[in-house]
Amino acid sequence: MGTSRRMKSPSNIRNLYEENKTKILNPHINHAKIINGKSIAEEITSRVASKVKWMKESIGKVPGLAVILVGQRRDSLTYVRNKIKACDEAGIKSVVAEFPDTCAEEDIMTSLSKFNEDPSVHGILLQLPLPEHLDEEKILNLVSLEKDVDGFHPINMGNLSMRGREPLFVPCTPKGCLELLLRSGVGIVGKKAVVIGRSNIVGLPIALLLQRHHATVTTVHACTKNPEHITCEADIVVSAAGVPNMIRSSWLKPGAVVIDVGTCPVEDPSAEYGYRLVGDVCYEEALRIASAVTPVPGGVGPMTIAMLLCNTLESAKRLYGFT
Amino acid sequence: MGTSRRMKSPSNIRNLYEENKTKILNPHINHAKIINGKSIAEEITSRVASKVKWMKESIGKVPGLAVILVGQRRDSLTYVRNKIKACDEAGIKSVVAEFPDTCAEEDIMTSLSKFNEDPSVHGILLQLPLPEHLDEEKILNLVSLEKDVDGFHPINMGNLSMRGREPLFVPCTPKGCLELLLRSGVGIVGKKAVVIGRSNIVGLPIALLLQRHHATVTTVHACTKNPEHITCEADIVVSAAGVPNMIRSSWLKPGAVVIDVGTCPVEDPSAEYGYRLVGDVCYEEALRIASAVTPVPGGVGPMTIAMLLCNTLESAKRLYGFT
Repeated sequence: MGTSRRMKSPSNIRNLYEENKTKILNPHINHAKIINGKSIAEEITSRVASKVKWMKESIGKVPGLAVILVGQRRDSLTYVRNKIKACDEAGIKSVVAEFPDTCAEEDIMTSLSKFNEDPSVHGILLQLPLPEHLDEEKILNLVSLEKDVDGFHPINMGNLSMRGREPLFVPCTPKGCLELLLRSGVGIVGKKAVVIGRSNIVGLPIALLLQRHHATVTTVHACTKNPEHITCEADIVVSAAGVPNMIRSSWLKPGAVVIDVGTCPVEDPSAEYGYRLVGDVCYEEALRIASAVTPVPGGVGPMTIAMLLCNTLESAKRLYGFT
Repeated sequence: MGTSRRMKSPSNIRNLYEENKTKILNPHINHAKIINGKSIAEEITSRVASKVKWMKESIGKVPGLAVILVGQRRDSLTYVRNKIKACDEAGIKSVVAEFPDTCAEEDIMTSLSKFNEDPSVHGILLQLPLPEHLDEEKILNLVSLEKDVDGFHPINMGNLSMRGREPLFVPCTPKGCLELLLRSGVGIVGKKAVVIGRSNIVGLPIALLLQRHHATVTTVHACTKNPEHITCEADIVVSAAGVPNMIRSSWLKPGAVVIDVGTCPVEDPSAEYGYRLVGDVCYEEALRIASAVTPVPGGVGPMTIAMLLCNTLESAKRLYGFT
């Protein structure tokens, strides 16, 4: 092996790579189960679609989602495009209100108020992040609690955090992560879970949600010393740091379950839109040490959208008293 | 020493005990600083009192607190009695609405609504826990957000949990714990903190508060396996389990700071009210291993009341635009 290592001609390197790849993909070698978010999401979406169809046939109504998109961030554009596409597939009516980067807060507030009052809209989604000049808190607080399918209203967040309370909506990405764990048969009660990142959108609500399911949760963030020493004791790691390939094998306990929420766009001229998405987790390394891993793309991403469809359907069902 | 160990006559045991006691209380032996919640609370209360006096002189108004007390739980009676006494000392007007254990929800709601509308009431406190037949969530949600000096309204809790948001009020006990840490010069940023217990009243908000101050927080609860292994890595331990003497020296890292929120009433005929309060932490053991410890009583308890005075003053200042 020492000899082959010294002989690193380009063709040998390629062979070594292929050999490793085979090893990793060989089902006889102990490696992680890949949690297929894409296929789970498709299953959920198709279930939503049939319920929407049934609602339409029964009461002549369909759920409606309104999306407010400000600016031209390419990741936001991709997310919104995918959300609308998913709505179409599920039979959910959707409408997008687009605003330029430089728009006035007033314009967004007006559009939001109209959606709040529109009885055909059951879910309102403000695509985040907003440009810096806009007051995200003020705008989010205006979203009607009953249409807050993203679950970011402080009342929803407060009820998510408090025991014995039930939020009207659980934020989509955390709800998707939980669903992946549950559908993969991962026990949560009493497990050590580490959440990396404490954003209002992902890290915080996923930590609250895991705690609701009786895990012992530690949240790791930018001020944490030796985060690696903390994550490597966790049975469940949910990473939402947004730092590509940060989680190396040394960060993981053998047999851990790894949910990768990171989706960092990296320039790639060969990709369809000029970039590709990279997760927080060094996937190839995680495959060797974890018991289950979500890929990026095809893991948490599709689940976020599926949960948005679920929340929108749920909201319409609640409004119409349809079960 | 081996010889003296073998000679354990009752008088020798007593001598050994006295010797240990002397060792513990000897300032020349390395033992924990006692965080004197009582004297810190007195200082805060006196500062509140002078501000109240100043408010009265300036605008002819004083802060007002309304307490709703249901039933005859002796711990609740003690807490309410102490709160009213503290209000008197600080010049805050207080009123208690007392209801029997068997009262109707409607009666409490009516009383609460009156306090919500009363302009001389700036803080409303519903003494918890309520008897089981009452819907705590429904009643708490009725407390006006602007008078929610206990900070238990879901909007206050949501804003406490979310980054970049500011709750109108932070719950009193967690706020008191934080104040004890800050006034004892304990650094929080980047420290490992373990909170034991996840109640809506203490465990949850103290965990959220420590995370806001950039600690790496783990919440330990009834489903946690080997809680001792987790707490013994913490720089800061806040215990709100309500299990007397649960935290032994083996649970603590040498030099840890220990905040004991536990106050379990234990029968004691020699005590003034027939019982005394015992904390979660085995105090004598903690004194030997921690760098700082709060006693019970005289630690967190008085701080809770001091913070209630602060919150009530804050609320009145906000209403009158008084700075």
